[in-house]
Amino acid sequence: MEFTAQQIADFLQGEIQGDPSVKVGDFSKIEEGKPGTLSFLSNPKYSQYIYESQASIVLVNKSFQPEKEIQATLILVDDAYQSLALLMSLVDQAKPKKTGISPLSFVSPSAKIGHNSYIAPFVYIGENVKIGDDCSLNSHCSIAEGVQIGKNVTLFPGVTIYNACVIGNNCTLHSGSVIGSDGFGFAPTEDGSFKKIPQMGNVILEENVEIGANSIVDRATLGSTIIRKGVKIDNLVQIAHNVEVGENTVIAAQTGVSGSTKLGRQCILAGQVGIAGHLQIADGTIFGAQSGVPNSVKIPNQTLQGYPAVPIMTFHKAAIVHKNLPDLQKLIYAMQKRIEELEKKMK
Amino acid sequence: MEFTAQQIADFLQGEIQGDPSVKVGDFSKIEEGKPGTLSFLSNPKYSQYIYESQASIVLVNKSFQPEKEIQATLILVDDAYQSLALLMSLVDQAKPKKTGISPLSFVSPSAKIGHNSYIAPFVYIGENVKIGDDCSLNSHCSIAEGVQIGKNVTLFPGVTIYNACVIGNNCTLHSGSVIGSDGFGFAPTEDGSFKKIPQMGNVILEENVEIGANSIVDRATLGSTIIRKGVKIDNLVQIAHNVEVGENTVIAAQTGVSGSTKLGRQCILAGQVGIAGHLQIADGTIFGAQSGVPNSVKIPNQTLQGYPAVPIMTFHKAAIVHKNLPDLQKLIYAMQKRIEELEKKMK
Amino acid sequence: MEFTAQQIADFLQGEIQGDPSVKVGDFSKIEEGKPGTLSFLSNPKYSQYIYESQASIVLVNKSFQPEKEIQATLILVDDAYQSLALLMSLVDQAKPKKTGISPLSFVSPSAKIGHNSYIAPFVYIGENVKIGDDCSLNSHCSIAEGVQIGKNVTLFPGVTIYNACVIGNNCTLHSGSVIGSDGFGFAPTEDGSFKKIPQMGNVILEENVEIGANSIVDRATLGSTIIRKGVKIDNLVQIAHNVEVGENTVIAAQTGVSGSTKLGRQCILAGQVGIAGHLQIADGTIFGAQSGVPNSVKIPNQTLQGYPAVPIMTFHKAAIVHKNLPDLQKLIYAMQKRIEELEKKMK
Repeated sequence: MEFTAQQIADFLQGEIQGDPSVKVGDFSKIEEGKPGTLSFLSNPKYSQYIYESQASIVLVNKSFQPEKEIQATLILVDDAYQSLALLMSLVDQAKPKKTGISPLSFVSPSAKIGHNSYIAPFVYIGENVKIGDDCSLNSHCSIAEGVQIGKNVTLFPGVTIYNACVIGNNCTLHSGSVIGSDGFGFAPTEDGSFKKIPQMGNVILEENVEIGANSIVDRATLGSTIIRKGVKIDNLVQIAHNVEVGENTVIAAQTGVSGSTKLGRQCILAGQVGIAGHLQIADGTIFGAQSGVPNSVKIPNQTLQGYPAVPIMTFHKAAIVHKNLPDLQKLIYAMQKRIEELEKKMK
Repeated sequence: MEFTAQQIADFLQGEIQGDPSVKVGDFSKIEEGKPGTLSFLSNPKYSQYIYESQASIVLVNKSFQPEKEIQATLILVDDAYQSLALLMSLVDQAKPKKTGISPLSFVSPSAKIGHNSYIAPFVYIGENVKIGDDCSLNSHCSIAEGVQIGKNVTLFPGVTIYNACVIGNNCTLHSGSVIGSDGFGFAPTEDGSFKKIPQMGNVILEENVEIGANSIVDRATLGSTIIRKGVKIDNLVQIAHNVEVGENTVIAAQTGVSGSTKLGRQCILAGQVGIAGHLQIADGTIFGAQSGVPNSVKIPNQTLQGYPAVPIMTFHKAAIVHKNLPDLQKLIYAMQKRIEELEKKMK
Repeated sequence: MEFTAQQIADFLQGEIQGDPSVKVGDFSKIEEGKPGTLSFLSNPKYSQYIYESQASIVLVNKSFQPEKEIQATLILVDDAYQSLALLMSLVDQAKPKKTGISPLSFVSPSAKIGHNSYIAPFVYIGENVKIGDDCSLNSHCSIAEGVQIGKNVTLFPGVTIYNACVIGNNCTLHSGSVIGSDGFGFAPTEDGSFKKIPQMGNVILEENVEIGANSIVDRATLGSTIIRKGVKIDNLVQIAHNVEVGENTVIAAQTGVSGSTKLGRQCILAGQVGIAGHLQIADGTIFGAQSGVPNSVKIPNQTLQGYPAVPIMTFHKAAIVHKNLPDLQKLIYAMQKRIEELEKKMK
């Protein structure tokens, strides 16, 4: 299916610079743009590519100021990345969706499956599971007894959901993600061994949550581990038992949140961050990559980094001095000698 | 099923404060306690909740000193968390267990399955596998040829065990865990590429080991990677080839142990710790979160943190100075000038 | 099957010291060597074991100088580890390979499977998938529509490949690895929520790539995430969207590479390294364990460590001073007082 620059600009309420009749039928990256494709420029790091790109149409921010002539037809919009997302979503939603229950799946007789949902081969659905309309459960998903899944939920292949967990509408779970595994709870005993604390709670994912590949949300010991609506979690993330993640918080890959910690709304955790247990993190907190967080954060909207995480400017300034420490130490010892000399002379 | 405070106190050998006839039928968290439920107070951080909790019974440590009146019936025990665990274990063990081999599983004719074991739909069991009594293999587990599994072992959905590995009695493996994958062994060649070293060994999990979701224990190049009895491993943990983890050692989420390292008994590794290869870690060593360990630890029972991990007090003191480094540097430069001034005057 | 020391030495073009007629039928570690087995000594840390090893034959480097008498027959080779690898590869390749398509698998009618390939029970193969000759797809693998897999590819149980990805010849993917999951791309909206950017690209693994257990390579937003030939990736590694990993680069466990970063050829990333997005890393760069990399690396063949990663000698020297910071701070304050004293006296 092809569209003209004019049609796309009208749809996006954008402004055309160039030929409005040029047509595109696919997307491309700006540095790999081919004729007949639509590309975009959002990150200024990639500006250089726009002058040589072969893409027929490029979405750019209205603020973009070209430094040279550009061959492509430009469509100026408020936010090129968002407009691209909107166009890609349209294409994505136009893809045909599978429906129906494969005869190669196992569906417990007591389970209820909504309309227009797809149950792929080798999916296991346990007793008393409820699945809403328009869901897509791909191969090798395992849904244990009593799980409730809302409408329009997509489970990529190999998602496991332990018993009694609740998945809200419009959630997307990627391959290998595990929802509701046991929290890591053991009580020490006198002989040095550890006795397992049965984990009797569950996990609740509210609406519009996305969970990355091989990420894990452990069930609560008692009560619920809760992922609030709009939360986006990347790959290989660990969310421990009884954690609560606030609305629209974003967690990048390989980050871990320890037991019973409450993350606020609209937080951003970069990659490989570690947060200790039983903490409260204020709304809007941003943690830089690899931060370690041993204490609660009470003031909202701070950007922190390092171990222990401190305001990011403090972190960067300390890091600069850090690598000069050996020279600084030498200087200090030299100064010490000079003071001794002075003291001798003063006697 | 309901129990009175008196029955529970008798069972736990605890002491009642309040109404011994009050009944409970479920558990709750102290901050969400409802009538008819039993709760507990172990972590002093949560003490505030006991005065307003609606739970009918609360387990508390004998050392607990209430500051105000408490509505609930208290049961005083030596260790509230352990007593709770004991009660939850009873409830957990009372759950009906599935048994039998699903016709939707694949079981090699040469495999042997013990009594009262459950083989779920879509489980794959290879040649010459031996599985003991009372095991539970949930959907999508894959057990390769020659694997031996003891008695009363639980595999949650989607566990993979490579060939020739050995799983001891009473082990629990969570979803997505992989036992016996190839160690990361490659020999450099002259053209810059790497040649794979076949990994001919196996993995041995002794008794009472728990492995978290999506955690991995690689097989040995030769010999065995060994996880000693009572070891508890959290989610997303990496145990490399030829590692040995000592008895009752506990490893939190996202920690990695590199090849051929031997961890002692009763160690505790917090989250996101990394341990280099070919090291020896003494018994009872505790590593704080995100520690990096490039060297062996010879003195037992130390608590270490940081990179390289140092005694935790040293780590904390250095961290405090670290964030003041920019000010300290300014001070040093200012002192340097003052020394120069003094030296000039002394000439 | 047994071989004499003479046969093995001839094959490896090595030199015998000891009885050339001694026979072996298995491998062993030097510290666990048994009669009838062949062992090796490569890492000098293990030299002590060679004098007491019961192994019948030990492969050693030509440079090895024994300090005492050795019972075993030695075979001297240029590189003991490489020679061992070669022997183990021979044994490994001699193992019987399974072939054929299990009737318990699901293979889309439009998929094409090459000669001598094995499709295990509970494998799912989608529409228009192409799989080359001599491949081995073990249980619970899921191959989505349009995937292309080359020749002699091994997928251990539970590998998931999303649609349209390309896997080159001789690749090995371990259990739980996920290829082609969505990149973590979301655009912020005015109400604070995030709108998903559909991920329209794919993943290309070139030839001879190995991917560890539970590791992930995300698909590109547009274009391809590319893993060049000969790359070896360990367990629990995260490769984000639009990343390119250069030829023969080696990535150890739990490392993460953020979106759109390009790693050069022949790089080595140790465990738990984190690399930020949109960077260029020069060929031959080595990052020590737990390094954090916020900036591009332009000079090739450097060894870097720490956060931010700096040349490794700088890192180690700074680390030594770091733990003395509290003492250094005390010294500085004491010096400050002494300067004040001197200044007073000079007035």
